[in-house]
This record gives sequence, C-alpha cells and structure tokens, in this order.
Amino acid sequence: MVGYAFMGAAHSQGWRTAGRVFDLPVQPVMAAICGRDPDAVRGAADRLGWGAAETDWRVLIARDDVQLVDICTPGDSHAEIAIAALEAGKHVLCEKPLANTVAEAEAMVAAAERARARGQLAMVGFNYRRTPAIALARRMVAQGRLGTLRHVRVSYLQDWIVDPEFPLVWRLRKEQAGSGALGDLGSHIVDLAQYLSGEHLVGVSALTETFVRERPLPAGAVAGLSASAGGDSGGGVPRGRVTVDDAALFTGRLASGALASFEATRFAAGRKNALSIELNGDRGSLAFDLERLNELHFHDHTEPASSAGFRRILATEPDHPYLEAWWPPGHGLGYEHTFVHQAADAMRSIASGALPEPSFADGLQVQRVLAAVEESAEKNSVYTPVTPLPA
Amino acid sequence: MVGYAFMGAAHSQGWRTAGRVFDLPVQPVMAAICGRDPDAVRGAADRLGWGAAETDWRVLIARDDVQLVDICTPGDSHAEIAIAALEAGKHVLCEKPLANTVAEAEAMVAAAERARARGQLAMVGFNYRRTPAIALARRMVAQGRLGTLRHVRVSYLQDWIVDPEFPLVWRLRKEQAGSGALGDLGSHIVDLAQYLSGEHLVGVSALTETFVRERPLPAGAVAGLSASAGGDSGGGVPRGRVTVDDAALFTGRLASGALASFEATRFAAGRKNALSIELNGDRGSLAFDLERLNELHFHDHTEPASSAGFRRILATEPDHPYLEAWWPPGHGLGYEHTFVHQAADAMRSIASGALPEPSFADGLQVQRVLAAVEESAEKNSVYTPVTPLPA
Amino acid sequence: MVGYAFMGAAHSQGWRTAGRVFDLPVQPVMAAICGRDPDAVRGAADRLGWGAAETDWRVLIARDDVQLVDICTPGDSHAEIAIAALEAGKHVLCEKPLANTVAEAEAMVAAAERARARGQLAMVGFNYRRTPAIALARRMVAQGRLGTLRHVRVSYLQDWIVDPEFPLVWRLRKEQAGSGALGDLGSHIVDLAQYLSGEHLVGVSALTETFVRERPLPAGAVAGLSASAGGDSGGGVPRGRVTVDDAALFTGRLASGALASFEATRFAAGRKNALSIELNGDRGSLAFDLERLNELHFHDHTEPASSAGFRRILATEPDHPYLEAWWPPGHGLGYEHTFVHQAADAMRSIASGALPEPSFADGLQVQRVLAAVEESAEKNSVYTPVTPLPA
Amino acid sequence: MVGYAFMGAAHSQGWRTAGRVFDLPVQPVMAAICGRDPDAVRGAADRLGWGAAETDWRVLIARDDVQLVDICTPGDSHAEIAIAALEAGKHVLCEKPLANTVAEAEAMVAAAERARARGQLAMVGFNYRRTPAIALARRMVAQGRLGTLRHVRVSYLQDWIVDPEFPLVWRLRKEQAGSGALGDLGSHIVDLAQYLSGEHLVGVSALTETFVRERPLPAGAVAGLSASAGGDSGGGVPRGRVTVDDAALFTGRLASGALASFEATRFAAGRKNALSIELNGDRGSLAFDLERLNELHFHDHTEPASSAGFRRILATEPDHPYLEAWWPPGHGLGYEHTFVHQAADAMRSIASGALPEPSFADGLQVQRVLAAVEESAEKNSVYTPVTPLPA
Repeated sequence: MVGYAFMGAAHSQGWRTAGRVFDLPVQPVMAAICGRDPDAVRGAADRLGWGAAETDWRVLIARDDVQLVDICTPGDSHAEIAIAALEAGKHVLCEKPLANTVAEAEAMVAAAERARARGQLAMVGFNYRRTPAIALARRMVAQGRLGTLRHVRVSYLQDWIVDPEFPLVWRLRKEQAGSGALGDLGSHIVDLAQYLSGEHLVGVSALTETFVRERPLPAGAVAGLSASAGGDSGGGVPRGRVTVDDAALFTGRLASGALASFEATRFAAGRKNALSIELNGDRGSLAFDLERLNELHFHDHTEPASSAGFRRILATEPDHPYLEAWWPPGHGLGYEHTFVHQAADAMRSIASGALPEPSFADGLQVQRVLAAVEESAEKNSVYTPVTPLPA
Repeated sequence: MVGYAFMGAAHSQGWRTAGRVFDLPVQPVMAAICGRDPDAVRGAADRLGWGAAETDWRVLIARDDVQLVDICTPGDSHAEIAIAALEAGKHVLCEKPLANTVAEAEAMVAAAERARARGQLAMVGFNYRRTPAIALARRMVAQGRLGTLRHVRVSYLQDWIVDPEFPLVWRLRKEQAGSGALGDLGSHIVDLAQYLSGEHLVGVSALTETFVRERPLPAGAVAGLSASAGGDSGGGVPRGRVTVDDAALFTGRLASGALASFEATRFAAGRKNALSIELNGDRGSLAFDLERLNELHFHDHTEPASSAGFRRILATEPDHPYLEAWWPPGHGLGYEHTFVHQAADAMRSIASGALPEPSFADGLQVQRVLAAVEESAEKNSVYTPVTPLPA
Repeated sequence: MVGYAFMGAAHSQGWRTAGRVFDLPVQPVMAAICGRDPDAVRGAADRLGWGAAETDWRVLIARDDVQLVDICTPGDSHAEIAIAALEAGKHVLCEKPLANTVAEAEAMVAAAERARARGQLAMVGFNYRRTPAIALARRMVAQGRLGTLRHVRVSYLQDWIVDPEFPLVWRLRKEQAGSGALGDLGSHIVDLAQYLSGEHLVGVSALTETFVRERPLPAGAVAGLSASAGGDSGGGVPRGRVTVDDAALFTGRLASGALASFEATRFAAGRKNALSIELNGDRGSLAFDLERLNELHFHDHTEPASSAGFRRILATEPDHPYLEAWWPPGHGLGYEHTFVHQAADAMRSIASGALPEPSFADGLQVQRVLAAVEESAEKNSVYTPVTPLPA
Repeated sequence: MVGYAFMGAAHSQGWRTAGRVFDLPVQPVMAAICGRDPDAVRGAADRLGWGAAETDWRVLIARDDVQLVDICTPGDSHAEIAIAALEAGKHVLCEKPLANTVAEAEAMVAAAERARARGQLAMVGFNYRRTPAIALARRMVAQGRLGTLRHVRVSYLQDWIVDPEFPLVWRLRKEQAGSGALGDLGSHIVDLAQYLSGEHLVGVSALTETFVRERPLPAGAVAGLSASAGGDSGGGVPRGRVTVDDAALFTGRLASGALASFEATRFAAGRKNALSIELNGDRGSLAFDLERLNELHFHDHTEPASSAGFRRILATEPDHPYLEAWWPPGHGLGYEHTFVHQAADAMRSIASGALPEPSFADGLQVQRVLAAVEESAEKNSVYTPVTPLPA
C-alpha cells in the first residue's frame, strides 16, 4: 500500500479483515506499506499491521513479496504509481478519483489493458458500490423492479469547511486534489448514478462555486478531513488561495433519456456524510442515504396504491450482497465494511481472472463526466456532451 | 369565487373557516360562486356553502354583494378575469401561477398597481407560504439563524401521470395550463426558495423533458388530478399530444451568490406531494417536507458539534405562526389550513391596507423565473438571467 | 353542544364542516351552545357559529330545535347530562371518557339501550378511531393481513405538566377529571388497542405514579392544556394537592392470548401528542404515530425477507377511509378532521339506525379496563381481570 | 476463547481489530480457541485467526500463553468455566447473561472478588454499552442534561421465531439458555436501563408468554439465530417442547422513583434487532434505536418550546466516546464495533487495574432483576422487589 492517512487506515482494515470473514480463493497478506516520512510510515506499519515499511514507492513495487499495489495517495500521483506498478507486473487497486485529468486516466486505462493481457487486476476504489444496500439496489434495478427509469437524483453533502477559518489543506489545492467537492464527492455520485442505473451520462450542464476564496495556511502536514488552523486566528496567520470548487451542481441526461441531477458540496451545515440517492422508474423507486447505510427504501409501484409506500428494507439479510459472511438480520455494518468487501472482491477477481468492477475504464468514464462538468461550468452552464468510451 | 373544482373546494374551506378560528377585523361572507355549467355550479354552491351561483364571471364581478373575487380557474383565464375584477373595484385573490405568460402577468401587475391606489387587494395564492412550518422557517431565516446562505435545495415530486395511459387532462395542455410540472409545481418551489431566502434568483440553467408524448383523450370534462381514461385502453381510444413538460430540473444563483437547485416532476413513483426544501447557511440549516407538514428540521451550527444535529420542531406551538388560533401542541394541521390562513391574511390586508404577501408583483417575478427556465431549456441549458423587477 | 373550550371548538369545526365535505343523508344544523358564563357562551356562539346560546343545559335539551346533544364538558357531568338528554328523546354524542366511574357508565349504557329502542343515537367520542390511517389499520387487521396477533404496544406521551410550577388545572383534580393520564390518555389507547385488534382485554397489571404532588392553584378559570400559574412563582402562591395520576403503565392479555402493553404519561419531555401504536401478528405488523398522523407503516411478513420491510403508506389515497371526500394523494389531513368524520358518521348512524361505533357500551368497556388498572395499581400490580360486558 | 459460533466470530473481530485502531497499553494476542468438535474448531481457528485450537476448555485455561479467557458459550457453562479460569489466575471476559441462575452468578462474583485481589479482570459482555451513541447518552445523563428522571422505556424486538416451523434450537431450551427472550434480550435492556439511568431497579411486575409451545427438532447442531428446520415440514418431523419464554413484558420502579417499562420478544414481525430506548427527565429526553445505531436523539427541554425538538446527533464526532480512533464525522460504525471497544476497554482495565465496567457484580445484579421478573410472572404479576447488592 502507498499512503497511510485516512484512506490508508480504511484500506488496511479491509485487507486485514477480508479473509477472516469471507471464504476467499486467495488470501491477502499485508506485506509492506509506503510513505515519505520514515518514522511516520514505520509507526503506521506497526499500528496497521503491515510487515514492512518503505519510503519510496519505486522500491515498494520492486519488492518480490508485493503482488498487488494499493494506491491511497492524493490524485496527482495516481497515474505515475499505477502505471509503473502495472508495468512491473503488479495488480493495482487505485483510490478514486482515478486521476486528476482525463489524459492521465487514459494513460492508466491503456496500461491496464496491456496488463490485463498478462492477467493483472486494475481496479478503482469506488467503495460505496460495495455498501450492501447499494449493491442490493443495483440487483433490484437489474431485475427490472424499477421498470423504465425516469429520474436519478443524487447529492453528496458535507460540512467540514463551512468555517472560513478552516485551513487550506491539500484537498483545497487544485495541484494535488485536481478539483474540490466535484472530484472528491462528485466522482462518487457520478459513479453510483451510472452503476445503479446501468447507463452512462451523455451530457451535463453545471454550475460550480468557491464560496470562501482564501483560507489560513495549515501549520504543518495535515490530513484531509481533520486539520486545525495554523495558529491564532488573528491577522498573523498567513493565508492562501483556494483553487478548487466548494460546491458543484449539475444536471444531465442518461443514455435512455432519463434525467439526472447532482449536487456535491462541503458547505451543507449539519450534513456530515450525506450521500443521498433516489431513482424513479415507472414500476418502482429506490432511495438510499449513506448516513443510514444499512437501509434501502423501495416503493413498488405495481402494488395497489392503497397499500403501497416506500418500505425500509434493512439490508442485513443473509441473501443480501456480502451479508452471507456477516451477522444476523438487523445487526448493521459500518462505513469501513465497504473496504472489506472491496478487498474480498479484488481477491476474487484476481483468482477468477474476471474484469474487476469498477475497472480503470469505469474510472476513466467518470473522469470524462467530471471534465464535461468543468467545461460546462466554464461555458456558462451550456449542455456539454460526455465523450463516450470506445465500444 | 370563480371555479369550483379542487382549488374551489379548498378555497371554500378557507373562507368558511377563517372567521370561526381567527379573530378577524372583517368577516368573509360567501356571496356567490361562478362556473360555466349551471347544474354543476348550483350543486357546488349548495355543497360548499355559497349564497348564490352564477354562470358568467362578468355577471359575478358586477354584483354589488361581491367585494372580493377569488379566481380558481386554469391559468389561461387569470389575466382577463383579474384585470376586469380590479377595474370593477373588487379585491382579487388569484390562484398561482399568476398567469400563463409574462406579458399577461405584467398587465395584471399594472392593473393591481392602479387598484392599489384605490385601496384594493391583489394577492396571489402561493398557499404553501402559510404552512406554519414554512412561515416559521421564514421567521428563523429573517432572525439570522442560518447566517450567510450557501445553498437552497428544493424539489417537488409527484407521480400522478407515471402511467402512460393516464388521460390528457387540461393540466397536460399548454393552451390551458401554460406549462406542466414547471408552472404547477415549479412555481411553488421558486416562490418558496425566494420567500424563504429573502432573495431573488438572478439566473438559471435548465433541462426539461416530456417522457410520455401522447396520451388517451379523456372521456369528458375531468378535474386535474383525478381523471380516468376515456374508455378501454385498447387501440380504440383516441390520443392527443402532450404539449407541456413532465419534468423540469434547474439550477440557479441567488442575488447573494448562494446556489439553488430545483426539480419539479410528475414522474417520481411513490412521491405523492413531496415538496422538499433545504437551506444551508454558515450558522445553521433548515429542512422541510410537505408530506410531513407539521415538522420543521433545524440544525444550529453554532452549537458544539458533539451535541448538534437536525432537530425536529413540531410546528404546533402557540407562538408559531398561525398557531395561536388552533389546537394544543402536537395536534397537527393539514393541507387545507393553508387556505384558511390565506383567507385570514387577505382579510387582514384589506382591513389594514398593507400590501399583501405575496403580491401580484411577487407572482410576476416568479413568472419571469419560469420564463428564464423555459428559455434556458430551449437554448441548450445555457445560464439565462432573470429579468429583475423595477426597483 | 354543552361546553365550549378546547373540545367545544374542535367539535364545532366538525359540525360546521361535515356536510360541506361529505355527502350526508341528514345535514347538521348548529342550533345552540351551552355554558355557565353568559358572556363567554354568547361569544363562543358567535365565534363558532352556533344559532343560540344557553346557560343551563336543562334548558338546552328542552329546546325543540335540538335533536342531538353533544357533550364536551369534564367527565363528572357526563352521566347526568347524557341520561337526561336521552330521556328527553335526544340523540347524544358524549366526549370520552364516557364517565368518571363504572357505575355512572353503566347507568348511561342502560339509558342508551332504552333510547336505542326509540331510535336514538348514543355515541362516545373516541375520535382517533376516525383518523384515516387508524381506520385503514383496522381494515387491514380485519382483512387478515396481520394473521394471528401476538403483540399490541401502545403509548400516549405528552409533556405539558413536566414543569412543577404548572398550575393545578381541573384535569389534575380527581373530582372533576376522574383520573389523570389514565383517563385522559389511557382511555384513548385502551380503546384503540381493542378497536384495532378487534378483541377485548381480559386482564391487566398496572403501576401508576404522581411525580409532582402539589402545584400552584390557578389564578382563575383555566382551560385544561393552556393554563398559566396563578401569580409569581415565589412562596406567595397558594398550592393544592394533585389528586390524579401523572403516569400509568400497564400490561395485559387480550382474549386471543396476545400480549398488550400501555403507557400514558404527561411527563415525557419533548413528546407533545405522541400516541404510538404497534401491532405484531404472524403475517404482518402495523405501526402508527399520531405526530405523523397521515402515515401508516405496514410490514408484510409473507413477502421474501430480502425485500420486506416496514413501508410508509400515506393514508391519503381516495380509497382510504374518509378520503373519498378530501384532497388528492399526499395532501394530508390534520387533527380536527377526526371530528369532521365523527360528525359525518353520527349523521349516517342516525339516518340508518345502525348502532354507532363506538357505542356507549364500548365506552363502558373501556371504563372497566381503567377500573381494573386502578385496582391493580392499588393491589401491588397484581394481575386483575376485566369484568366482561354481557354477551 | 471458548466457543466459536456467532459470538465467537464477533469477539474474534474485536480482539483482532482493537490494537490496530486504538492506542492500547497492552496488545491482545489471539493465542487459542476452544470447542468440542476438533475439525470445526480447527477450521474456526484458521478462519478467525487464532494461533491454536483446543477441544477441552480445561486444557485451554491451563495454557501458559493464555492470560485472558473469553467465554462465548451458552449460559449453562459460564459459571464453571469462569470460576475455573479465575482460580487458574486468568483474566475473564464472560458473555451475557452472566449465568443462567442467581446462585451461579453469586458464585462467579465471589470468585471474581477473590481474583480481583490478585489483580485479575472479571468483566461481563454487555457489549451494547459500548455503542458510541449509548456511551454518549450515558455521558449526557451523567452531565445532568436530563435533570430528574421520570421515565425509562426500553424494548428489544426481534422476529426470528415468528414462524412456528422454526426449529427448536438451543436458545429455546431452558436447560441451556436459562430463559428465552428474557435472558437473551431482556438482560441487555435491563442492563442498559440501569447503566443509562445510573440507578438500579427496586422492583418489577411481569407477564411472560410462550406463544408456540412445540417446534420441530433441528436436524443437527445449529447456531442460535440461523437454523433451518430438520427436514420436511410434514408430519414426519419429530417435535419438542419449547421450555423458555417467547416474550416478556415488565414494568418497574428505579431507586429514584422513576418508572421503567420493558418488553423483550422474538415475535415482532419486521423488527430484526430493534432495541429502542427512551429516557425522559424534567430537563430533557434521549432516544436511541439499535437499527440506526449511529444516531442519538436528544430533546433539550430547557430551550424555548418554539425552537425545541428531538435532534438527531450523529454519534460519529471525534469527541464522542470511542470515535477518536475511527473515521471522520458521518462515517458510521456497525454492530461489531461494540466488540472492538469491549476488547480495548478490557485491555485498558487490565493495564490500569481499574474495576471493569460492567463487572461480574453488575452481571449478578441484572440476574437478580431477571429472577424477580420470573418470580413476578409466576405470582400473577405481583410487584416483586429486586434483591439489592450489598453496599
């Protein structure tokens, strides 16, 4: 694994647990973790349970005991590491968004295709697909329970930078993060809208905004979601420019003609991790809220209206996705379980040779949607087509 | 009153009840009701409690015992009736949307201004402003409890035409209804977004869609929300063209720079009357859902995070708007109470001479937003400014 | 009508509205209202829309233009007025609880039986049966959708006397109110448990408590739910003894062997009018909360577990009880509509001659349950049989 | 660890994870697991990550590399194993309920007291105390945010034996399980009521019931919550007698005079793991539902009524109990995290020498409440005092 902050800890929990809960064809072994600060990475290795610590990712991917490289760094380094790892014959799991630019993502897909011919995995970490309620929703859509789709409505609301004195962490700098709420939160909801509907977006119209344009510089190296300001909040603190969006709103059309709406923001006071999804079809509707992640709400429109309504399915039944391995009905899972499921699915893909879901190509397609969003926002919100993937 | 269908019944309940519950400076007397079908309007007068029945609205507004004309007809007749009534010296309450076109609405505003000089009322029926929870939300925003506003997020979802065999009622014909979900539902949410924020929209970007383009013609005269198809659903039923939108999605900017998103649709299976509102500011947030109309959810972002969260305020306390006149805490009100409150407020405006809220000018401003939405939708979603009202 | 406080206003709204909304075989006419204070009752008559005002209920029931007497006074006067009215040949609607003692209730049932032979109505005002969601729940139970019943779980939580300085209003005095939370709130939930299950309680075990045993005397005559203390809260305010229960908890067995639990309290801070019901059977479950009175939650246990869950039925569909007369789906009703429905049902019972539901016998049966609760509470909670009605 | 079924898997996840997430003074090492079936326990050891497998618990507790024994077996074996382990100088964590009888629990407490003098831990596994929202609720009660407590209302509803053909697993046999819903579910809610209120129950009144008195014998060895019937459901399947309660309802008084109500059942169709708690005091109220375990609802009764209401606190803030070690706000935890927290707290108690919470004495006290419940149920629900612990 490269990186050991928030995502590094979450992925470690996934690798450590997957084989203890699921019956896997191959077992993950936590060989080595890599980061630039030697003391910090050594501490992380001990705490998180990795066998070794490295400070240079090039050394990491050269190790013989490393067969899979899990990339948990900011987006600006994804392409370089992933392509090098694939070319070194390693399987790769890369955190989302796949890259900071479409060009990088295209190069990664090309590397993944070459590697696939050699039996290597290249998977992108849209972990929320592996929330049981989301995977159940996908199954129900695929079974036709929604009928013809009319609407997809997704938003991802957080509030961690509402305070204008929150410091200028890396997630607020374009050169590292690529974009702001759009890439961080918007990439998730674009992926989920397409995954759940089984369709791609064909065009978008977008507005973006940066509400707070300058912020205090952080005191030192800080993690993305938990920084504190770099000193007293008086005039003495140096400030820097926020170079990413704080919020992105966009609408779009799916291939079938269904309409989709999207909102990603870090300025929704009181909403902590509120990823909300609703799909409406002519035979039924589904709704989900990540703050209540064990629930899926389903309305069956084929029932008589007098007894119809949104039902709360607790996605904790043994025949729900991933639940065969966990607890009895009603004993809910948490956020990090998505990483356990991701690790398990990666192991299964490696063993079976099947194309992983989501693949690097899926990650590129999301990147193209984000690029169309940015282009539309720059061009006065005009409807902007999304470049399709080759057939 | 002109018209006696759904809105006529609801307004009648308002006029009948207002003076029995509120302590009013002038009492409404239900003098006469008007409709084209003599038998039907006679029956409606008896059932709803009107003193007389008329079949010609020109005769109605000429009656000496009529001092206020309440217009509950489809939008294509609003301008003609309202202007004539105002010029005949009558007070006017007109259902929303104010008119089907901006030009009509402008003429109505001009007539209202002339009439106001003579002490006449001209009020538009955006009744949801008078839901106690909404009026409480407005009060809290005005008190500064949200701080600087960042987001307004409103949607109005219904599902009554999901079935493609639902007939082509007047609400689906442009010549009578002006537009579809946009004018019927969108006008409410545009009004509420502006009312609650205390700001106007300065521009919008929009997508609209008509999912089902042909429908069976209705068997006879039908009310808007409760028609049945005109016979067997086989090939024998003649069909007509749907000439309005089924759904409208738009984003916009408010004068302060806050972002707003809107969705109005009649194709959200399982959503019956789901008008949802959320406002996020840097000091707090508010959320409301018309399907739970006695509740207002408030997050106070100035509290310590460890004990903060969205609280459910039951908008049934004696010091909440309109509640001084009703039941003890927890004994909720319903949909039609908004019309009781509207009737009471109209009486108070007449007695005090104060400009009513919402005025015809407010109605015109909403109409201009809807016009900008239609223009943007026609122009590939390009961001389209909203023509401001004169200062 | 006798009485013009909270219940008087609510019942007036029912009588005024029923014939304007429902198609009734006989129309109510609001002839006269009665109260002891001449000025106050005159004002109430004008405000609420009654044709005349009386100060002596004996005069009221002697009026020729009075055919039905609606009793909205405290429980200590119910028996005397109701029996006199029935013997004077009038129909009677009596607020709940039917009486303050079983003996009074028995005398009322005897009078009602004699009157029924003469075609007179004797109905008790358990208005919550007429909430559409509750009536729908009853219909679903009767259709067998719950199967064999196992549990009934009901509670009615309020908080209006949490403050120990809230004054000693009539509802806190045994001589007028009969009992406290038990008679006021407990009578409703006992009635609903039996109505919904279609079964009688056969025995109960109970705990009751008075948390605040002395309270300031009120300054003057005060209404039940809205009094203020009789002066400064210092030592100068005279205090009196609370002679009723503040809370009553009881469990019981229904005739079929199902278990039931009950809680009635006025000390649940934050719960305003929280009447919650849940029924569990082997084929399904139902849940209801009066603070969200337009919703009924239903779990169908015959569905596959993977897609089962409690669904939220909005009880606003045209084929739901009472809804044929009201608004389109999703446009909710409020508390007072239960009184409109009660008035309509009373008119229909009078016209058809059918035994009204709930009858005085139903009211007596509830009274016997409350008596068994009080007896159990006095006897160290021992399980106490409920005296059955004669077959 | 002794036992490797549902609880064994959950506890293993706790031991495996605690030291990877929390900064612990001593690190757990998973030395050996014990069960009677050699192949099964070997498989469990491999899957769950234990260093060795044993088939005799006496051998296990004699191992030098075992310093703590975690007992995850049915209740009938708790006393014997725990006492032997304590006397062998081992720390002990014992699953709830502490024992099947008061006498056994008393012997265990005596052994724990002797062991404590030698510095050994004796802790009982009421894991739900370690749900962050529950621990936060306890903190708020201790801070006085509820004021004088009036009501505690707890229920624990499941539905896994609604079907009368569900087989007669060990949890339905008195000789192994001690009691049914009472010991399994009721012990949790008694513990939580007392833990949250900071008070003991002084007496109870109870009803219990076994709805389905005979069930098919299981085909083979089955786990508690996931058995299937032992063959065709026709007449051929042998049946056995259910010797425990299916449901237990009880009310009680806390030491302060507050009232408490309890319901534990396995017959609430649609309720999977519905442990609901509400506490009402004169300064505030708290509510919790285990099916939404990341939420705590708090009503502050000291606020003005016009802006008061139950607020949803997401118990995922860094200063909430246990959350310093997990994910950013809004990223929820699941059921098994309670076992991670339990493992961490056990390690800390061992290191500090502090009396663990909950101790064996706490477990005994719960056992005495359960015994009083059973006694009351046998004696016609008469109010039955709970034997207090020695001061």
